[in-house]
Amino acid sequence: MEFGYAATSLDAVAERLGSTKGRIYHHYRSKADLYFDVQATAMSRLQQEVEPIARGPGTPVERLAAMALRHTQILLTELPMQKVAVQGLERHPLGAAVRRLRSVIRMRDDYEALFAEVIDQGIRAGALIDLPPQLATKPFFGAMNWATVWYSQRRLQGAEAINDIAHMLAACAMRGLLKDPNHGSARQAAVLRHDLG
Amino acid sequence: MEFGYAATSLDAVAERLGSTKGRIYHHYRSKADLYFDVQATAMSRLQQEVEPIARGPGTPVERLAAMALRHTQILLTELPMQKVAVQGLERHPLGAAVRRLRSVIRMRDDYEALFAEVIDQGIRAGALIDLPPQLATKPFFGAMNWATVWYSQRRLQGAEAINDIAHMLAACAMRGLLKDPNHGSARQAAVLRHDLG
Repeated sequence: MEFGYAATSLDAVAERLGSTKGRIYHHYRSKADLYFDVQATAMSRLQQEVEPIARGPGTPVERLAAMALRHTQILLTELPMQKVAVQGLERHPLGAAVRRLRSVIRMRDDYEALFAEVIDQGIRAGALIDLPPQLATKPFFGAMNWATVWYSQRRLQGAEAINDIAHMLAACAMRGLLKDPNHGSARQAAVLRHDLG
Repeated sequence: MEFGYAATSLDAVAERLGSTKGRIYHHYRSKADLYFDVQATAMSRLQQEVEPIARGPGTPVERLAAMALRHTQILLTELPMQKVAVQGLERHPLGAAVRRLRSVIRMRDDYEALFAEVIDQGIRAGALIDLPPQLATKPFFGAMNWATVWYSQRRLQGAEAINDIAHMLAACAMRGLLKDPNHGSARQAAVLRHDLG
């Protein structure tokens, strides 16, 4: 997270771990291999936490609001790991690791599809604005994921202050897609502390 | 934009330009120096186009919608340059260029302040939800700026299709802050093709 993928050497990683490059190579074939392990671990975390909400009970708006909140909470509390997961990798020479890139891209697509499905249900129920669901995920994720660009935890910022930001971002993401934030369907997003209206 | 700052050498830049590294060093003292010139140029473009709208006539909602649309149009049509402007630079060893970093950060702060001012006016007018204006800019820019992560122009995508995406993103960003997208004040955002309700 500090220096980006290209500028971070395995020597620097080993030093930070108090370990050696040899030990890292014992577990990973290359820097790209290690990097994709971080991405895959971060994507699994998100998927594990959010999928049960998507498939669980409740109206589409209720579920989408809870999904957005959980997504943002994980993002902000596990920022170093999640930053690489949501921003992904610029085109780097990856060599043999290109197969792992494909698998990470598939994980990300599956995760986005979870949201697109619930958004689609919300559109059909008349609660969300009429956009192609996959396109609708873009500004929705943007309102939340942009935090990986601007946010950095302040030294004395406690868990509750971070949670407040998560609620605020999730509420703005929801409002962006809601047909009428003052309508009854919006009140189903009561999981969010912020009034949607 | 293709490989990121750290992985791009001045040799590679020279090759792409059909020039030599010596010629680049004739104009720039370092890679960081060249990079900040791109950032400063991109930020100036945004500021030049958006400031007259912010200071111009119209209600806060009218101006904010027009600012969001212009911002997103520039983002999508000048993606390679704007991507570095809005995403900024991870912490890289910058050496003597650190002074230029400060100046670029000041430009970005000034640009964000333009939006925060108009958002503040919109909150005072009762049209936008009650958030600290600077915090409100975060999900607002997020809905639009996240395009620098997910968007890449398709080969046969024409100017009108790109403009459609700009309208959609700006409308979602606006809706995220509007108290009531079906209220009269929201109709002042008529610059956007998308119904806000």
